[in-house]
Amino acid sequence: METQTFSIAGVTGQMGPSIDGFRERWAGYILTLQNTICDTLQSTDGKAHFTDEQWARTGPDGKAEGGGRTRIIVGGNVFEKGGVNTSVVHGQVTEPMRRQLGINGDRWFAAGISLVIHPGNPFVPTTHANWRYFELYDPSGTVIRRWFGGGADLTPYYLFEEDARHFHGCFKSAMDPYGKELYPAYKNWCDQYFNNAHRGFEMRGIGGVFYDHVVPGETGEQHPVAFTLEEAFAFQQAVAEQFIPAYLPIVEKRAGQAYTAQNTYWQQIRRGRYVEFNLIHDRGTLFGLKTNGRTESILMSLPPQVRFDYNYQPEKNSPEAALLDACRHPRDWA
Amino acid sequence: METQTFSIAGVTGQMGPSIDGFRERWAGYILTLQNTICDTLQSTDGKAHFTDEQWARTGPDGKAEGGGRTRIIVGGNVFEKGGVNTSVVHGQVTEPMRRQLGINGDRWFAAGISLVIHPGNPFVPTTHANWRYFELYDPSGTVIRRWFGGGADLTPYYLFEEDARHFHGCFKSAMDPYGKELYPAYKNWCDQYFNNAHRGFEMRGIGGVFYDHVVPGETGEQHPVAFTLEEAFAFQQAVAEQFIPAYLPIVEKRAGQAYTAQNTYWQQIRRGRYVEFNLIHDRGTLFGLKTNGRTESILMSLPPQVRFDYNYQPEKNSPEAALLDACRHPRDWA
Repeated sequence: METQTFSIAGVTGQMGPSIDGFRERWAGYILTLQNTICDTLQSTDGKAHFTDEQWARTGPDGKAEGGGRTRIIVGGNVFEKGGVNTSVVHGQVTEPMRRQLGINGDRWFAAGISLVIHPGNPFVPTTHANWRYFELYDPSGTVIRRWFGGGADLTPYYLFEEDARHFHGCFKSAMDPYGKELYPAYKNWCDQYFNNAHRGFEMRGIGGVFYDHVVPGETGEQHPVAFTLEEAFAFQQAVAEQFIPAYLPIVEKRAGQAYTAQNTYWQQIRRGRYVEFNLIHDRGTLFGLKTNGRTESILMSLPPQVRFDYNYQPEKNSPEAALLDACRHPRDWA
Repeated sequence: METQTFSIAGVTGQMGPSIDGFRERWAGYILTLQNTICDTLQSTDGKAHFTDEQWARTGPDGKAEGGGRTRIIVGGNVFEKGGVNTSVVHGQVTEPMRRQLGINGDRWFAAGISLVIHPGNPFVPTTHANWRYFELYDPSGTVIRRWFGGGADLTPYYLFEEDARHFHGCFKSAMDPYGKELYPAYKNWCDQYFNNAHRGFEMRGIGGVFYDHVVPGETGEQHPVAFTLEEAFAFQQAVAEQFIPAYLPIVEKRAGQAYTAQNTYWQQIRRGRYVEFNLIHDRGTLFGLKTNGRTESILMSLPPQVRFDYNYQPEKNSPEAALLDACRHPRDWA
């Protein structure tokens, strides 16, 4: 995969215009959101700048199949390492996709934004967010199925209950207008998903919201509300636009707090759990790595400096033990 | 899983004596080997001591199903973190084992020794080795299938060709008496197995030997020689007893070499690849984590301090680039 200039026009040019114009609207939305989020975080950091790398995906037959934009921040005042990535890609449905993912259809299109931010100060939480959209086509190019997914979650190293309430409260208030059942369902899904099951029930952090396979017009066990396509798009935007208001006030409140080498040690131990989750359990990471995704863009999510100690246990009744307890016992924060 | 006193007599007491006495011989062998290896490494280190933790496995019905002995070294003069573990466990063949592993039979027995050593000095390579044995029984307790597996591999951070030749040469000379085809076959298997395929072809290190499913009386695509049971046992011992002569002279030669912060930085980047391999690809790790293995004993393999940088590239023609080249292009070392 080589670095090339990437543009929505380029991708849609490869595919031809969509029948209903929706994939261009979605791709346009996430590329604008990427810039907004990068500009805001950069201005908060005050030192480091996001890089801008554009890459192209090439199909097995050598044909262009879209690409993406990887934006990385490293060594900032606040942000030790982070990435805000978009990809707008398409391709032929392959046998392994049919077999392993139960995907039908002739061609597929996927476009999403994914971000992970690892601050240096152990009192500032790590965060992750992602919003994605998928279309499947029959040989005539008609959409035969489409779905949305997304969410945002917080991984603190020290628990500040007011921060957890603030973060969850933002996403609850974004979701409530679309149905009061949504936040509890997607909060619970997040707790279950970002979980190091090989350590018993131990969440990566204190959760947030997570949802997948939201198909317009359908409800399901984990989908309490049937959206129209336009409602689903509006819902995605409402949730995504809460990311900055949910995360930034926490960064601003905690970034100046003095910390010790012991605080950093614990941060690096917990970052080890972050690595375990992403490499052992995260479907998005493993799917990307096993389907010829751009490895460096996928693995930008890994924390910069990490420790793996044998059987590390925090002291009883310590702030470290309090964080671990919150990871092991999900709470209602909003 | 609770820590309890563990003994071969305890395990065989739970199971009753074996019909042919072989599982007791194998278990006795690996427990003795564990002590020999720990004593030798400890004496080389001169500072840190191996801990000794014994744990018991409990089956789904609450019955005792063997256990293991986890021996960890941390913060030594030479060894920053390492583990030399044994486990001697047994259980009922479950539906997931039948489905996912194609295992038939009524009960199973598995006993192995597994070690990973991470030295502090970046000029001293990391090493891993493992020897294991598996039996399947019909309801009368008769062995219906049994196999061996094992190997040892080297993960240097800087390439010293003479060290690579020495390490490979030891295992070649251990294997040659059992058939000249063995070393080339198992060397190649090692290169293919310890491979971060999500980075193209990039080995974890410079290889060694690896073999699995060596069934007495059988040959196969990857098994050039049909051993009797006694020959297979003798082969395992011959290979295992080369571990100390293969690794220790390298440690002794390199441990005193002065190094810089830049050398450590590169070591931590490469340790990141070690984590990637173990958590994404290693069948033993993933099988253990997903079948209620003892998580801390399994994950003792992870390096103590690790870096994940976005798209880190060593300088052209540097010693770091030379190591990476050796990982990408397997060579004949022996």
